[in-house]
Amino acid sequence: MTRIINKPKDTVSQVLNGVAYIHQDRIERIPKTGVLIKKNREKNQVAIISGGGSGHEPAHFGYIGKSMLDASVSGPIFVPPTSAEILLTIETVDAGQGVLLIIKNFEADVQNFLEAEKMAKAKGHKVGHVIVNDDCSVEIGSFEKRRRGVAGTVFVHKILGAAASDGKSLTELIDLGEQVIGSLNSLGVALSSGTSFSKEERRFELDKDTISFGIGIHGEEGYRSEPFHSSEALANELINKLLVQYEQPTNKKFALLINGLGTTTIMEQYIFSNDVRRLLKLEEIEVVFAKTGNYMTSTNMAGISLKLLEIIEDSWLDYLKKPTDAFAWS
Amino acid sequence: MTRIINKPKDTVSQVLNGVAYIHQDRIERIPKTGVLIKKNREKNQVAIISGGGSGHEPAHFGYIGKSMLDASVSGPIFVPPTSAEILLTIETVDAGQGVLLIIKNFEADVQNFLEAEKMAKAKGHKVGHVIVNDDCSVEIGSFEKRRRGVAGTVFVHKILGAAASDGKSLTELIDLGEQVIGSLNSLGVALSSGTSFSKEERRFELDKDTISFGIGIHGEEGYRSEPFHSSEALANELINKLLVQYEQPTNKKFALLINGLGTTTIMEQYIFSNDVRRLLKLEEIEVVFAKTGNYMTSTNMAGISLKLLEIIEDSWLDYLKKPTDAFAWS
Repeated sequence: MTRIINKPKDTVSQVLNGVAYIHQDRIERIPKTGVLIKKNREKNQVAIISGGGSGHEPAHFGYIGKSMLDASVSGPIFVPPTSAEILLTIETVDAGQGVLLIIKNFEADVQNFLEAEKMAKAKGHKVGHVIVNDDCSVEIGSFEKRRRGVAGTVFVHKILGAAASDGKSLTELIDLGEQVIGSLNSLGVALSSGTSFSKEERRFELDKDTISFGIGIHGEEGYRSEPFHSSEALANELINKLLVQYEQPTNKKFALLINGLGTTTIMEQYIFSNDVRRLLKLEEIEVVFAKTGNYMTSTNMAGISLKLLEIIEDSWLDYLKKPTDAFAWS
Repeated sequence: MTRIINKPKDTVSQVLNGVAYIHQDRIERIPKTGVLIKKNREKNQVAIISGGGSGHEPAHFGYIGKSMLDASVSGPIFVPPTSAEILLTIETVDAGQGVLLIIKNFEADVQNFLEAEKMAKAKGHKVGHVIVNDDCSVEIGSFEKRRRGVAGTVFVHKILGAAASDGKSLTELIDLGEQVIGSLNSLGVALSSGTSFSKEERRFELDKDTISFGIGIHGEEGYRSEPFHSSEALANELINKLLVQYEQPTNKKFALLINGLGTTTIMEQYIFSNDVRRLLKLEEIEVVFAKTGNYMTSTNMAGISLKLLEIIEDSWLDYLKKPTDAFAWS
């Protein structure tokens, strides 16, 4: 299919320029880099950075705003940013209170972010990190848990961003982040693999009326393909797989995120949301916060993912609800 | 492709239930109808209703909120709601200051909304309407202007909603709406036709690397198909076609909306936004307000549309910027 692009090599750079243009009241680009930064950053608080490969829009730049991120750093499509650009981002946003990196758990991402953290510390910056590993799918073959970082990351952005704006220290934010990540679980399915961005190649093949469980956000195939029956059956399966991650989940409070992976229509997302509602009610789960939309995509993959966050402290809910002008959060 | 649905006949009803569930702090459904209404509606101001067929999500329910809509009324996919349901909506939201209907210019929509207006007036309600006709494409064959109502409608929702919250009367809102509509122009292209929602039929065929100019939001084919060259060439063509609609456009202020039609990625939308930026600058057009995103879709059509609104009064810009909690606006 035709794509609205110019020269493929300019794609990411032009995306970032477009974001800086449309959101120029709030966001600017450090020229010739993958770095977008919040204008009018607050002083006297820890600065928060997230990022990763491109192809997951509106992640991560859509979460730049008050009580969320101070900057995002984007690499090429599905390739993490270099440690040099992450370092530049740290140096740019550090206002003296330190910098927190929110990293998705993929080997190359973790490596580059931690290398940048080390370089920044050597230059005298106070830097820490949390690694989000919300995915509770398993490896094909070994059935080992993979614990990749997927769209649940957006809840981590919001809670830690709001806590930072509340004056929490870097150490406090890391502790809070680790607690939140420990209460967060995600699982996604694909209905089509999507194609690589500048070519027509499908990343994997799915039979008609078949879905793939446990897909990744870089087009990775899931661990199991099976026939699709209905939105309700799918909701039932995903909820069951997520709830077993929690001890005694009955009567607990949860935040819910239903994430479209790219080309799944908003109609389908809300039909699925409706099924999730009925099934969680049967499980006596109290949903105290809910969002549905395209929060972290995998270019043009069709599919949906479900994330549950058990609300351990009431303050987490306050942080989720705290207003932000990040354009992709609402 | 598989779709995340249950029984096809339940699709729209389940979408509306899903919306009322996820946004239960703000939105409720009148059971068994296509009507979603704002909770905690302001008294002492004109109530505003919009709606139409389903398949355009997040339109129109995504614009329910403070300083925007009081209610949306949805029909089946690509079929307008009945006059009976529109009447019910009017009766529900009228707080004594009257009700304004924002109608998209399609024959069946206009007919049903005006019939409901007539019935409501007979029951003693004060009701008025504006008809949005922002599309400046032409008919195949006759080349007559069609002036359908498309995604520019979202600017009308925002400006009139904010003006209503400012205490404007029904007559003042109708006058303002007609002025805004007279300054609004849209043009869209499709890169793929999309399929009808419960079948695999494509609504029209496009050759590879070909785009269709002047498509509608119900999957209607455009008036001309031609090869796709680049985002920049497309931006150039759409801008030129829109600017000829304005007299002496140089040095005037415009609001800009770049709308994804469904499955076009956010990356492509921002690449196109970047091209629009450079070209409008060359035309010495001052963009004082800009948005990019999926504001009014045509299910799974791939494509993009561009809307320009000439800002005649500074108050229009204030109304566009006035905060709202409508979830699809940010």
